Amino acid sequence: MIVEMRKNATQDEIDEVIQRARSLDLDVQLNSGTDKAVVAILGKDTGKLSTDIFAVLPGVESVSRIMKPYKLASREFKAEDSVVSVGDIEIGGRRIVIMAGPCAVESEEQLMEATEVVKSAGACIVRGGAFKPRTSPFSFQGLEKKGLELLAQARERFGVPVITEVVDTHDVNQVAKYADVLQIGARNMQNYALLTQVGKKKCPAVLKRGLSATVTEWLTAADYLLAEGNNKVILCERGIRTFENSIRFSLDISSIPVVKKSSHLPLIVDPSHAAGHYSLVPAMAKAAIAAGADGLLIEVHPNPKEALVDGLQALTPSDFSRLMEKLRAIAKSVGRYI
Amino acid sequence: MIVEMRKNATQDEIDEVIQRARSLDLDVQLNSGTDKAVVAILGKDTGKLSTDIFAVLPGVESVSRIMKPYKLASREFKAEDSVVSVGDIEIGGRRIVIMAGPCAVESEEQLMEATEVVKSAGACIVRGGAFKPRTSPFSFQGLEKKGLELLAQARERFGVPVITEVVDTHDVNQVAKYADVLQIGARNMQNYALLTQVGKKKCPAVLKRGLSATVTEWLTAADYLLAEGNNKVILCERGIRTFENSIRFSLDISSIPVVKKSSHLPLIVDPSHAAGHYSLVPAMAKAAIAAGADGLLIEVHPNPKEALVDGLQALTPSDFSRLMEKLRAIAKSVGRYI
Amino acid sequence: MIVEMRKNATQDEIDEVIQRARSLDLDVQLNSGTDKAVVAILGKDTGKLSTDIFAVLPGVESVSRIMKPYKLASREFKAEDSVVSVGDIEIGGRRIVIMAGPCAVESEEQLMEATEVVKSAGACIVRGGAFKPRTSPFSFQGLEKKGLELLAQARERFGVPVITEVVDTHDVNQVAKYADVLQIGARNMQNYALLTQVGKKKCPAVLKRGLSATVTEWLTAADYLLAEGNNKVILCERGIRTFENSIRFSLDISSIPVVKKSSHLPLIVDPSHAAGHYSLVPAMAKAAIAAGADGLLIEVHPNPKEALVDGLQALTPSDFSRLMEKLRAIAKSVGRYI
Amino acid sequence: MIVEMRKNATQDEIDEVIQRARSLDLDVQLNSGTDKAVVAILGKDTGKLSTDIFAVLPGVESVSRIMKPYKLASREFKAEDSVVSVGDIEIGGRRIVIMAGPCAVESEEQLMEATEVVKSAGACIVRGGAFKPRTSPFSFQGLEKKGLELLAQARERFGVPVITEVVDTHDVNQVAKYADVLQIGARNMQNYALLTQVGKKKCPAVLKRGLSATVTEWLTAADYLLAEGNNKVILCERGIRTFENSIRFSLDISSIPVVKKSSHLPLIVDPSHAAGHYSLVPAMAKAAIAAGADGLLIEVHPNPKEALVDGLQALTPSDFSRLMEKLRAIAKSVGRYI
Repeated sequence: MIVEMRKNATQDEIDEVIQRARSLDLDVQLNSGTDKAVVAILGKDTGKLSTDIFAVLPGVESVSRIMKPYKLASREFKAEDSVVSVGDIEIGGRRIVIMAGPCAVESEEQLMEATEVVKSAGACIVRGGAFKPRTSPFSFQGLEKKGLELLAQARERFGVPVITEVVDTHDVNQVAKYADVLQIGARNMQNYALLTQVGKKKCPAVLKRGLSATVTEWLTAADYLLAEGNNKVILCERGIRTFENSIRFSLDISSIPVVKKSSHLPLIVDPSHAAGHYSLVPAMAKAAIAAGADGLLIEVHPNPKEALVDGLQALTPSDFSRLMEKLRAIAKSVGRYI
Repeated sequence: MIVEMRKNATQDEIDEVIQRARSLDLDVQLNSGTDKAVVAILGKDTGKLSTDIFAVLPGVESVSRIMKPYKLASREFKAEDSVVSVGDIEIGGRRIVIMAGPCAVESEEQLMEATEVVKSAGACIVRGGAFKPRTSPFSFQGLEKKGLELLAQARERFGVPVITEVVDTHDVNQVAKYADVLQIGARNMQNYALLTQVGKKKCPAVLKRGLSATVTEWLTAADYLLAEGNNKVILCERGIRTFENSIRFSLDISSIPVVKKSSHLPLIVDPSHAAGHYSLVPAMAKAAIAAGADGLLIEVHPNPKEALVDGLQALTPSDFSRLMEKLRAIAKSVGRYI
Repeated sequence: MIVEMRKNATQDEIDEVIQRARSLDLDVQLNSGTDKAVVAILGKDTGKLSTDIFAVLPGVESVSRIMKPYKLASREFKAEDSVVSVGDIEIGGRRIVIMAGPCAVESEEQLMEATEVVKSAGACIVRGGAFKPRTSPFSFQGLEKKGLELLAQARERFGVPVITEVVDTHDVNQVAKYADVLQIGARNMQNYALLTQVGKKKCPAVLKRGLSATVTEWLTAADYLLAEGNNKVILCERGIRTFENSIRFSLDISSIPVVKKSSHLPLIVDPSHAAGHYSLVPAMAKAAIAAGADGLLIEVHPNPKEALVDGLQALTPSDFSRLMEKLRAIAKSVGRYI
Repeated sequence: MIVEMRKNATQDEIDEVIQRARSLDLDVQLNSGTDKAVVAILGKDTGKLSTDIFAVLPGVESVSRIMKPYKLASREFKAEDSVVSVGDIEIGGRRIVIMAGPCAVESEEQLMEATEVVKSAGACIVRGGAFKPRTSPFSFQGLEKKGLELLAQARERFGVPVITEVVDTHDVNQVAKYADVLQIGARNMQNYALLTQVGKKKCPAVLKRGLSATVTEWLTAADYLLAEGNNKVILCERGIRTFENSIRFSLDISSIPVVKKSSHLPLIVDPSHAAGHYSLVPAMAKAAIAAGADGLLIEVHPNPKEALVDGLQALTPSDFSRLMEKLRAIAKSVGRYI
């Protein structure tokens, strides 16, 4: 950490900063500049310390970090890429993994039809929501346990792993019994109670980026899962909240190279929730693969017009098939395959 | 809802929109403009319908809402101001209610000292965190049950109600046993499982605005509490995430008049978490009262230098006393009192 | 426009809305809903009208637009893609046009070397700033007229068109004498005096998106150029300001499909200014092409370490050559070429 | 500046950083931490240097500033508050200065009526736009020279100074001939050509904050005016662009204490442009004064229903009079007067 003193800071004030650092077993180096003094605080774990420890002291102008606050998710902690296995599917390797299916599980017929079409088009993991966190309490909240059973049924019948969201610490065990991959939604990215439970479960988990989380906060949230010993963490970019209103959320395409530089974890992209409209999904899916994403999470509905939730962002089966052809060409152009 | 058709939409496409509306028992009025057709969908509860129901239909350009998605929190649902009672303290009346205390309960000594100073300076509810949702898993997470017991002790000794945060659905009953007011933190504003549990509890609850929640989303989250029959809901503005980096979160001062116009619920402001730095708290506290807030939630620590959490944003007891004097003058100038 | 009346609006208030609309020669259709009245205002040019005309009237709750405020830039105005010719280079056709060069023209040697390397790697237009709008008045402001002369010299020597920024209405004529394409920078996107001058010039112009401009505002700014009769307008996405701080500006990748849907104008992307760091440029350049951009504007410097301006975002010649190879593969995978 | 080296940076790379600093006559202090080396670069004017100078060097992880990029606007440069005189009115003293009037000058009748009412209610400077920067080229662009003449007429007749916006470098001389205070609009905050011209003019100038400018960028833009020798600079907060859509721009109330801490310049607030709706103006005007603003810029129109521009945000004369009464009470409560 770098502690910048005020222009007129006294020697006593500077000494207090130095003493506090030493009391925490940290190294200190003082730079008495022409204009103001600067104290560098050095040590292995300064990333875990709050900057406030020094910022509250008298005579301090500002404190800035050099170490990142996340540790286990960082590339400095683990240099080589992590690969997460779901059955025999590897996420984070050369293959780009497509997960697809309806936003919500609505009925046996709907889920089986969706599973069939996405599998035949090349998706290798099926998605479907059983518990739906909805903005309004008056909206459809999902089939819950019945939805989980239908997902398990689809898995068995079509031989594909399934991913579904868990929204309550109470439900973690139950959901993990039925699903291969647990999804932590954007609105729960900093629900630390839930992160801790899913961390303990040690099963593959997709951690969606919060609507307004910085990349640093997202990787720090991943540390909650990793700190419990769950190293099967897959990050998922799904758009951030900005002022732009022509799209539901602005897909932060630059988070892909930033995460790849800063972290060893695999990263997928959800273009459907970002877009909010089916017509924008293909361009964003293509961009994600070109930029280096390890997979996609796409909403496909056999009949979007009749969808109970988010029909507007779902692709039809034929649109999805067409898109998959195009994604295969782009994957190949960046030295990967689907 | 207003459904705008594409310029070249066919009569069949227009008819499909009309039929879908009628199938949902909604009234329809068709405007065949010079340039494009517009279908107005009318009915009591269109605010609860997803716009996607129409947006997915062929020939539709866009769908916009006229009704707000929240209902129970709206002033159209209840015209007069709601007042929430905590013991004999009324929140939402002429008195401006000051809640103050440390960010985290750290020890008996710290909490009793803090309670004494904030009470004697004029605060009428004491705050203190027992469960601390922290960005990093390596940070201090609160005293948990021990913290709750200390809060109950402070309440008894000083005769003041206490407010504390609940972060997990598992803990709602326990926290409600010790605290007078439950706080739902900004990062949990859309943790619907938690909202539902707190709603069932029917005790006074402060609902903090999410970092990136619009006012509309915040009021819709309040509907989750209200829909369970808990009408003791107090809203709390605590700053939103913007690009500005001279402050931790940008206090959205305009949310005060906007909420007062749109909702009957009382509204308090937390200048401490928005500011992140004690030197900015007084200006923001004063602005909040001038703009019409019904109360404040302020962090005060007997010794900020030694605080385990967020010491930089805490006021010292003497700073808090000085601020209270100034707030009393402003309250009086807007026809209220503290 | 859709005028929503308040719940308790009187018949007189409704009538006043209707009369104001009729006084402007607009058609009106009244929907007397169960809950509140809604007046649809219909006519060819309602997009040009301010919503305030109705919003100020008593009894009005809100006014929403159906027509977009931009007209000449819209796809409704011109359905087929516009192609802008710069010499024999077409922007907006099947070829993806790469413009590259240094941020600022620094010296003859630097510009000639840069031109040679970017041309030989496949760029077909050379960029270089002569007038540099800098955040601080104490920074290098560009070589100005000398810079323009060097650009003209590079054009002649290497046979490539050049693009450079114009920052002042005073300079439009002079800059247009030397450059093939005028660039209007992000900070000047709503400098209407400058837009009008460049519009009158009728030469090819790149209009960068403002840091905080919505797509709608950007296209409305393009209307300023088009309204003066300059239809050689090329849009340039260069990132928007968001809360994310791991990158200088968040490249809004979704603006590509949104602009392509809403407008006939060609669209290029500047990954260098968005990124602010050379290591992020390749991923974003690739994403832009995959998402459908018609070209790129990339900073390349013969020796970034010695650059006077923005050296950190410039690619070295060899990095640029390598990137071009990869971009060619992606262009091919989406049915285009470089 | 603090240059953080990569974990595995070589001694040669560290040496290159040190040599570059020394070649610029800067002092250097090397901290060889346990984990990574950190080089502190010290000197008087490092705030003026680009961080890129070091960031481009091999082995460098990141560079962070300690010095702010602005200099002349900073409180470190000038400790005591600046007071700007407009005739015998002082801006930045104990008196809170209210500037009011219509958005646009529309006619002699309208301006004289507006001037009369705002003066009699206690405003001491009259505002009115002659050149209107409008989002769409098809909107009313102002009366231009005729508008300036009417402003001069109002000034003479009512004995009040006038403020009006200048939008083009061509017009600076002309506008300065008629107006007492030049206003630089939010969209021109980084129009450096215009800033330089207004700086040369040395007359009182209001510099509005850009829609997406940080406080640091705003103060750095003020340096453009100050560097030309114009020290009559008044800052004006008018709201920033955020995701919130219940208001046109989010008034950044915290910029008031932040600017007061960082700069010696006086600061006023424009609640009208931020709000976009008259009903939100009073709460924001009150908050601004409570938070420490030195003045307000408020839109008042004799007949908002007939306003050609932004009628919805204008107060009626009677609303303005009522508001002034309330503002006087708040000013008094914070030890100031109107």
